[in-house]
Amino acid sequence: MLPELEAILHRVRADRLSGASALAIGVCDPLRGLCERLQGMSAQKDLEEFAQALVRVQPNMGGIWNLANGILHRSADVSSVASFCGSMSLHCASASVRIAEVVASEVSGRRIITTSSSSAVFHTLVKASGERGTSVIVCESRPMREGILMARELGRVGVSVTVIADAALALFSSDASVAIAGADAVNRSGIIGKIGLAHLAMACDSRNMPLLVLADSSKFAPISLSKDLRDPSELLEPGTPGVSAENRYFEHVPFEHVSAIFSEKGRLSSEDAQRAVWGAKVHPKLVQKPQ
Amino acid sequence: MLPELEAILHRVRADRLSGASALAIGVCDPLRGLCERLQGMSAQKDLEEFAQALVRVQPNMGGIWNLANGILHRSADVSSVASFCGSMSLHCASASVRIAEVVASEVSGRRIITTSSSSAVFHTLVKASGERGTSVIVCESRPMREGILMARELGRVGVSVTVIADAALALFSSDASVAIAGADAVNRSGIIGKIGLAHLAMACDSRNMPLLVLADSSKFAPISLSKDLRDPSELLEPGTPGVSAENRYFEHVPFEHVSAIFSEKGRLSSEDAQRAVWGAKVHPKLVQKPQ
Repeated sequence: MLPELEAILHRVRADRLSGASALAIGVCDPLRGLCERLQGMSAQKDLEEFAQALVRVQPNMGGIWNLANGILHRSADVSSVASFCGSMSLHCASASVRIAEVVASEVSGRRIITTSSSSAVFHTLVKASGERGTSVIVCESRPMREGILMARELGRVGVSVTVIADAALALFSSDASVAIAGADAVNRSGIIGKIGLAHLAMACDSRNMPLLVLADSSKFAPISLSKDLRDPSELLEPGTPGVSAENRYFEHVPFEHVSAIFSEKGRLSSEDAQRAVWGAKVHPKLVQKPQ
Repeated sequence: MLPELEAILHRVRADRLSGASALAIGVCDPLRGLCERLQGMSAQKDLEEFAQALVRVQPNMGGIWNLANGILHRSADVSSVASFCGSMSLHCASASVRIAEVVASEVSGRRIITTSSSSAVFHTLVKASGERGTSVIVCESRPMREGILMARELGRVGVSVTVIADAALALFSSDASVAIAGADAVNRSGIIGKIGLAHLAMACDSRNMPLLVLADSSKFAPISLSKDLRDPSELLEPGTPGVSAENRYFEHVPFEHVSAIFSEKGRLSSEDAQRAVWGAKVHPKLVQKPQ
């Protein structure tokens, strides 16, 4: 594989903090540049290998899957891959802002609870904070603490934000009136999201509180949750005899625990979401083995 | 107040890791020594002040409340306080082992999920691990990570133990068939336990999995959950502009979310538990203001 493609894969594999949109942009922009430089040459085999490897290194991200699928469908023509990457990058950069325009009015003036970090959630909270009374509770989101990173960004732009421990979500959810979370993928049966999403959904179920999931259309993909074990040393100091750690970043929440899904097109029912997933034209090289 | 009493209070206030039993023993042993040295002298006013301050510095621990209540009832006679402390220390040291004898057979051979750290849970898991097939999932338990500390001790003595992030409890609870947790207090309406207990109870409710709570009889006390905010810097690096952290160590779970309570006397119904709490002879200096 071309060393530039290897380098992109390496970065995607090593990135433990970026949300799905930032990660997709981080692939699209350099890949577009590379394909423009390859104008007139053939790179089909490299691009196919790259697309398949991309899905293996981030198997739970719908945006990455759609990017890989799009590359595979166009791999015979590098200039077509370049323009696809350009439009996907533009889509990812703007979709969060468009989702925020749709969702902000649903949460404005309320005490909102969320977990982890998502660019769509970030833009929504910033937009909603214009209205008096809006405030946010964010879970720390161990092991990588990306909830703290988002809280800092929110605080910096003047959103009223309180950080809590992940284990305190059940307690603090009684202070909130609505929960929102970003999605990494929407599949045929529900949402794949950062670890803690199921925990948030349970709190919502038990308090009869709405859970709004934000997922731009690039995240709808026919993928199943992959076990994808991460570095155990993020949870447990290495060299702890007799103890192991299971470190998973993603989990799946069925549609019945989600009150509404919002993409840049507006509010979707679970039937709308399922239709979008079934509509994907899956390249044969991405067909999953049954799990 | 006598400097020895101030020193005990200071230690109790600063201790963020010990479970309820270890903390009670850490008060009883030095207090007994002090009262033995004070033989024949009066220290009633100091002991009363000490007992009231003790409850203020650890307002959510039933064992501390019972210790303070016992001291107040005997404060006129230092030798009586000394012998009370002696028997309370003995009780706390042995009750966990006796609870383990009762509970181990309930969880032996199963995959058990727990959170935080408790001496009764520790002894139960060690005893249960004698039977083939027993294994344990322990939540990290941020902010102080006492779940990791307990996991290390369990691993050291050969218990099969896996550590997970707190936010992964919903996901991993589907691997377990029973949940156990220690209590810091049993009050008239339920259990006060370490933050994460409500989260565990929610997972049990949603998966129809039993939640066994271990609480020796010294923990039954007519106290209400106190807000008791802890150092926010345990969650959020100091100097983070625009963001605050709410760090609470304890929460309350009503009896209806608990399958069974076990003390050293065996399995208790919630009615048994309530009777034990109502039976406490509350010293007037400990009567709580209505909350």
